[in-house]
Amino acid sequence: MNPKALHKISYGLYVVTSKKGDRINGQIANTVFQISSEPPTIAVSINKQNLTNEFIRDSKMFAVSVLAQEAPLSLVGQFGFKTGREVDKFAGVNYRLTENGVPCVTEHTLAWLEARVIQEVDAGTHTIFIGELTGAEVLKEGTPMTYAYYHQVKRGSVPKAAPTFTPRTEEKPAEKMDKYVCKICGYVYDPAVGDPENGVPPGTPFEKLPGDWVCPVCGAGKDEFEKEA
Amino acid sequence: MNPKALHKISYGLYVVTSKKGDRINGQIANTVFQISSEPPTIAVSINKQNLTNEFIRDSKMFAVSVLAQEAPLSLVGQFGFKTGREVDKFAGVNYRLTENGVPCVTEHTLAWLEARVIQEVDAGTHTIFIGELTGAEVLKEGTPMTYAYYHQVKRGSVPKAAPTFTPRTEEKPAEKMDKYVCKICGYVYDPAVGDPENGVPPGTPFEKLPGDWVCPVCGAGKDEFEKEA
Repeated sequence: MNPKALHKISYGLYVVTSKKGDRINGQIANTVFQISSEPPTIAVSINKQNLTNEFIRDSKMFAVSVLAQEAPLSLVGQFGFKTGREVDKFAGVNYRLTENGVPCVTEHTLAWLEARVIQEVDAGTHTIFIGELTGAEVLKEGTPMTYAYYHQVKRGSVPKAAPTFTPRTEEKPAEKMDKYVCKICGYVYDPAVGDPENGVPPGTPFEKLPGDWVCPVCGAGKDEFEKEA
Repeated sequence: MNPKALHKISYGLYVVTSKKGDRINGQIANTVFQISSEPPTIAVSINKQNLTNEFIRDSKMFAVSVLAQEAPLSLVGQFGFKTGREVDKFAGVNYRLTENGVPCVTEHTLAWLEARVIQEVDAGTHTIFIGELTGAEVLKEGTPMTYAYYHQVKRGSVPKAAPTFTPRTEEKPAEKMDKYVCKICGYVYDPAVGDPENGVPPGTPFEKLPGDWVCPVCGAGKDEFEKEA
């Protein structure tokens, strides 16, 4: 059995949000899918250890913001690598509340969907929440962020043959420069790619990064990085 | 509420297969996803009216073949627009049986996964089958077919801005040529795109298609097409 076959499954990338009383929270998720069209129902799979799981079980409401492909790593990091138990994930983020008081991220977002839970499925480490659509809006046209794009293009290790490969700048021949891995979130800094979203051009060795440069995903400092083995 | 927001959710494209006694069947599905990693479980959502649903309920086994992006429309049509109640969907298709006797498509396929059902969730029109992984193999590297790619690129109406847009030939300015819709499966013949997989170059009006040309998805004849409104 080769579990790498699991990596061939395609997903989008979403912020799944909910509320509990007057508290709001959200997290990154990739398992969002439509179940039926009559009535329209959608499902999300959320780890039981996550605060968002607790909020959805409490309010029986969740929303899904469909991230655009151009969404910056920092937005993914804000919702994906921090916990709402410690920080307000919506600080500095554009969002709105639905009529039911559920937050929806509105920046770098193509559309949002809101649903009322009609079924909770215990699936071991995760809960699958099935919800009937209670609201939905398209904010703009564009290409949705996919899980593959996030991993391959955003992290700079995309196969050249992939149709999703869209170099932003001329590629430079890869010199012998080391990649560095963030010990907090696993982000890989690839000198051949740089960090263009934060003004670091391709070809910048890790050592030459500004002292105040931080991990574009989780915000960790340079000292949290180690050379890739 | 704008239900078009649902179209922003990303999916792959798969052949979900199963068996019942010594009969085998399969169908196209887009809702396949991993639920947990310890133990590895995957889920599929299958319409209750489909024969594959009946087979999975009977054998408690299913397999998923991850289609490659280059999979031809005819393969999607074979499994997606015919019923195993009337035809042997595996006729003329490369496949193999797992040790458990479940068929896996092996052509135009990047990987297959096999699972034993541990939970069935009644979700209205559909059943969500959650299964523990019993087998998995990567057949080749490549880009998985996504639902978006199938609809946008394969059907020829992809936004130019989409990174998945990979023109195979020089585009010709769209003359005033009518599109034709297959009344059986909904495939749209776009003269500007042609049907390159079947030797029809871009720029071929519907009227100039060979008399024996058939719908590349479902195999219907030209007389099953009508002019797009």
